Amino acid sequence: MNRFAPLALALACTLAALPALAAQDKPTPTAKEILAASKPAEWRTPDPANLLYMQLPAGRVVIELAPEFTPLHAQNIRTLVRQGYFDGLAIVRVQDNFVTQWDDPNGDDGGDKAKLHPLGKAKATLPPEFTRAIDSKQPWTPLPDGDVYAPQVGFSEGFPVARDPASGKEWLVHCYGMVGVGRDVPPDSGNGSALYAVIGQAPRRLDHNLAVVGRVLQGMPFLSALPRGTGPMGFYEKAGERTPILSVKLAADLPPAQRENIQVLRTGSPSFAALIDAARHGHSAFYPVPVGKLGICDIHAPVRVDGKPL
Amino acid sequence: MNRFAPLALALACTLAALPALAAQDKPTPTAKEILAASKPAEWRTPDPANLLYMQLPAGRVVIELAPEFTPLHAQNIRTLVRQGYFDGLAIVRVQDNFVTQWDDPNGDDGGDKAKLHPLGKAKATLPPEFTRAIDSKQPWTPLPDGDVYAPQVGFSEGFPVARDPASGKEWLVHCYGMVGVGRDVPPDSGNGSALYAVIGQAPRRLDHNLAVVGRVLQGMPFLSALPRGTGPMGFYEKAGERTPILSVKLAADLPPAQRENIQVLRTGSPSFAALIDAARHGHSAFYPVPVGKLGICDIHAPVRVDGKPL
Repeated sequence: MNRFAPLALALACTLAALPALAAQDKPTPTAKEILAASKPAEWRTPDPANLLYMQLPAGRVVIELAPEFTPLHAQNIRTLVRQGYFDGLAIVRVQDNFVTQWDDPNGDDGGDKAKLHPLGKAKATLPPEFTRAIDSKQPWTPLPDGDVYAPQVGFSEGFPVARDPASGKEWLVHCYGMVGVGRDVPPDSGNGSALYAVIGQAPRRLDHNLAVVGRVLQGMPFLSALPRGTGPMGFYEKAGERTPILSVKLAADLPPAQRENIQVLRTGSPSFAALIDAARHGHSAFYPVPVGKLGICDIHAPVRVDGKPL
Repeated sequence: MNRFAPLALALACTLAALPALAAQDKPTPTAKEILAASKPAEWRTPDPANLLYMQLPAGRVVIELAPEFTPLHAQNIRTLVRQGYFDGLAIVRVQDNFVTQWDDPNGDDGGDKAKLHPLGKAKATLPPEFTRAIDSKQPWTPLPDGDVYAPQVGFSEGFPVARDPASGKEWLVHCYGMVGVGRDVPPDSGNGSALYAVIGQAPRRLDHNLAVVGRVLQGMPFLSALPRGTGPMGFYEKAGERTPILSVKLAADLPPAQRENIQVLRTGSPSFAALIDAARHGHSAFYPVPVGKLGICDIHAPVRVDGKPL
């Protein structure tokens, strides 16, 4: 059972120091220990106006919108959700090592989606919001180890962010579990009625080409473990292969008693800094040599429900 | 259907030049065009002594061993396969955004795996083979855009490789679809009887801490789309959740007529160089601005079966 323990859990085990470990500092605190010692104020309770509950037959996916980065898209998605737009739609595409996408299948079946399924009060097109101006007032926790694609990377309140000081722009990074907006060729053709979640290696070529609207906080396996579509780009070829979306609701629209008690560790907190340090410099008997580096998509802001880490 | 086309397929479409595109060079060749124009000599037919056919109920997974990097592990795995060691074993662990692992479940059920399931002529322990000395005679196609974790990265005959000239070492990188050797805490405790494939963001902290023995050429969805295990580290909690392994055979042990006609594009070929160039500098109406960079786990050596790209 202890074969090939991943870092976090290997660190979580209390293991006798081996000779290889003795050459390093004393064993570093484990992720589990760091989270157990975290203070209540280090945890952020997301605004329920930013939390989507997407109910699939197998369970619930919780998505946190990121209106600081994509405010117009967040507002349009809220409008769509409140109209019940997504209820009865489906997961139409699962492309291996890339994305799971949901949409109105009528668009894929050759129908005119906009006619068959009016957007109501939501807008049909939106300014792209692929990037935003760097705002020094926003929280910013830089990661020091560089990045292949962007001059700077770091976190802003739980979201992975890349920055280019030369252009003055910043944008959310397409890490595993991030949610983006499907669109047609025109940059303004995305409106939030088709969304995707990253289920593989971070597709960084999508960064600042598509609007990223949030992050899956809970339920990723309900999106990542679905059968891959066998059509072009991972679209399902038969209607029966699609996973139905039972409903998408905004937490703010539910009575407080029906909302989840979900929290995200603040990425500006000392405990998140300790997690970064453990990921970069942590060592154990299983991993005697610290890796020394950390990529922007290699650590995620921890989430807990009812105080229990997911 | 054309919403949110990924780069390769967006490039594959013939799209009228938009104003944003006019600012760039003329549209670049698409991946599909590059592969269609490739020459037979650019494709390598893997040695059948290095090809594992792992038969699952849903289909076949084909793995190419990398004996240039991990020769002792490759030989031990061949010995295990030829004894029928894996036949009737199971996928015992699927940890989301990490690995799918197969092994003898008796080890997980508290039994003494080595007693219940003797390794026969295979060795119980092996020198780690986590790294090897850089060999200037091996093929080497560097990627120029840097890497967060290693001083140099590139490809060697289809496999992603990292190098550290200071130490004189190189090692296979834990990209999506790479196959590694599960072990216990002692570095020599891996023997190939427990293997894992990467199914998420490249877990680079595993590099040069675990032996990487090969790459999945075909059938990744049969490993990546499995239900995630709900036990610690993604182990399945109930025996019935495990996916049985019907058989693992070496292609070399099958009559030639039963072997797949599988080929891998040579990563030192002009066509692979063109694919790298297209990934870095390619642009289309959908992605008007080239991303300009390419990470080691963001491109894979193409595979074809009977001449048809997978």
